[in-house]
Amino acid sequence: MIISVIGAGTCNNEIYSIAEEIGKLIAQKGATLVTGGLGGVMEAASKGAIEAGGTTVGILPGFSKEDANKYVSIPITTGLSHARNIVIVRSADAVIAVSGEYGTLSEIAVALKLGKPVIGIKTWENIEGLIEAASSQEAVDKAFELVNK
Amino acid sequence: MIISVIGAGTCNNEIYSIAEEIGKLIAQKGATLVTGGLGGVMEAASKGAIEAGGTTVGILPGFSKEDANKYVSIPITTGLSHARNIVIVRSADAVIAVSGEYGTLSEIAVALKLGKPVIGIKTWENIEGLIEAASSQEAVDKAFELVNK
Amino acid sequence: MIISVIGAGTCNNEIYSIAEEIGKLIAQKGATLVTGGLGGVMEAASKGAIEAGGTTVGILPGFSKEDANKYVSIPITTGLSHARNIVIVRSADAVIAVSGEYGTLSEIAVALKLGKPVIGIKTWENIEGLIEAASSQEAVDKAFELVNK
Amino acid sequence: MIISVIGAGTCNNEIYSIAEEIGKLIAQKGATLVTGGLGGVMEAASKGAIEAGGTTVGILPGFSKEDANKYVSIPITTGLSHARNIVIVRSADAVIAVSGEYGTLSEIAVALKLGKPVIGIKTWENIEGLIEAASSQEAVDKAFELVNK
Repeated sequence: MIISVIGAGTCNNEIYSIAEEIGKLIAQKGATLVTGGLGGVMEAASKGAIEAGGTTVGILPGFSKEDANKYVSIPITTGLSHARNIVIVRSADAVIAVSGEYGTLSEIAVALKLGKPVIGIKTWENIEGLIEAASSQEAVDKAFELVNK
Repeated sequence: MIISVIGAGTCNNEIYSIAEEIGKLIAQKGATLVTGGLGGVMEAASKGAIEAGGTTVGILPGFSKEDANKYVSIPITTGLSHARNIVIVRSADAVIAVSGEYGTLSEIAVALKLGKPVIGIKTWENIEGLIEAASSQEAVDKAFELVNK
Repeated sequence: MIISVIGAGTCNNEIYSIAEEIGKLIAQKGATLVTGGLGGVMEAASKGAIEAGGTTVGILPGFSKEDANKYVSIPITTGLSHARNIVIVRSADAVIAVSGEYGTLSEIAVALKLGKPVIGIKTWENIEGLIEAASSQEAVDKAFELVNK
Repeated sequence: MIISVIGAGTCNNEIYSIAEEIGKLIAQKGATLVTGGLGGVMEAASKGAIEAGGTTVGILPGFSKEDANKYVSIPITTGLSHARNIVIVRSADAVIAVSGEYGTLSEIAVALKLGKPVIGIKTWENIEGLIEAASSQEAVDKAFELVNK
């Protein structure tokens, strides 16, 4: 199973902790984590997953695997810029959005269009179809529950 | 100047008329129209533009130019599926969203991330940065005004 | 009908003249020219086509339409880097390769894989399926002949 | 380190064995294997790598991870069709081509354009810059040697 975690490339400590916990829980449940491979929420989730023994894939927008944060075990260098967002979402069995701005909103929308389960925590509101979660645990539980349904 | 019109692939008559009028006004002002090349809002805008003597580009998701509606003068067959949405938005000096669902939301979000002017009419609400317009004329006027600023 | 002309971004005068003549002939026959929108062969073909009253589309790899040569009437800014090569080839009814290096070889190969007619002039040799032409006129004649077959 | 193995989606037993051995050697040397995730050479290399305890990433052209052969541990579903070939090549520190037709030729050409080491075995000939190898062992040895240079 593959879970993608999406969110902004810079974030405050609270959001970082939430994303790190989500990454840890994903790895503990045996799923592979996919992110955009950069900083902020992507780094936090990757850190949580890798420290829990998981595998972390980073789908990078640019041309160099040096762009990846240090918790990415498999950097995929696309050179596709924002079009790589589609790949992040399409690869996932479920998507968890943590905080995030316009880039995250575009990924949420693509995921919903593709019919993927999308769980949000402290992210865009009032998007029909986006399932809100109040904690990292709830977000990950819902993601696995919806994939296995 | 290039203006992209985005919106759902099927729509009712009211939305069709709005999009057709927008296409007509874009062509009359001498800009090239870019759309996703399929039905609904994309077809309506292309019809308006081509009947006003404009040029219409359709950035198609699939593999055949036969997919394009009959008002597309230049079909660009990408085979990129949803990733072609990024190209539609990136090519534009300004984006006008008419109605639309998740696909349109993802394009609005990408356009805002790229810092493009985005004008919406009868589309997603409460998206910060999205400029609402009440009529086709207002939408096109605002688009040109913001590009020329 | 859409004909794509591919080739290197820098070239000598002889190659420039050949590509310019090809662009002119494509426009005179009423087809739309698609290129990668940059310099060298792409610029030469666009110059020939636009000066003959044609329409020229440039599928750009980067993020700004300022990257396009001045003979591109419709710049499509993809931000997809080399993946835009696929779009250039896929959009075409036939492909004409003029000189060119590795980038051109990759486009020739994709075009042949997609089953498109590919005509080459002073380009890669010994590629099965690539049809060689000795002059601009012969290249364009063969392209149209194969599309209309 | 990431090594991509490219080649046709169907192949005979001899080529299958060569690719399987290459996959095994890549995994034994501790690198991650990236392929296009489908059959033939892609399947053979993945089988060799996974049975030697390695990690295998499949960058799929389509929309479903069910398209992946059963030796892919991490399927990345791109929906990008042939444009996914660029991602396979760009992600690699070195590329090994085994047999293959036009799709493989396009990947070889892109890899050479990007300045990646490309080793070929029983594949396209007379491509300047393509390093030929006579055995699976030689191909993998050369790939690692060139990356570490």
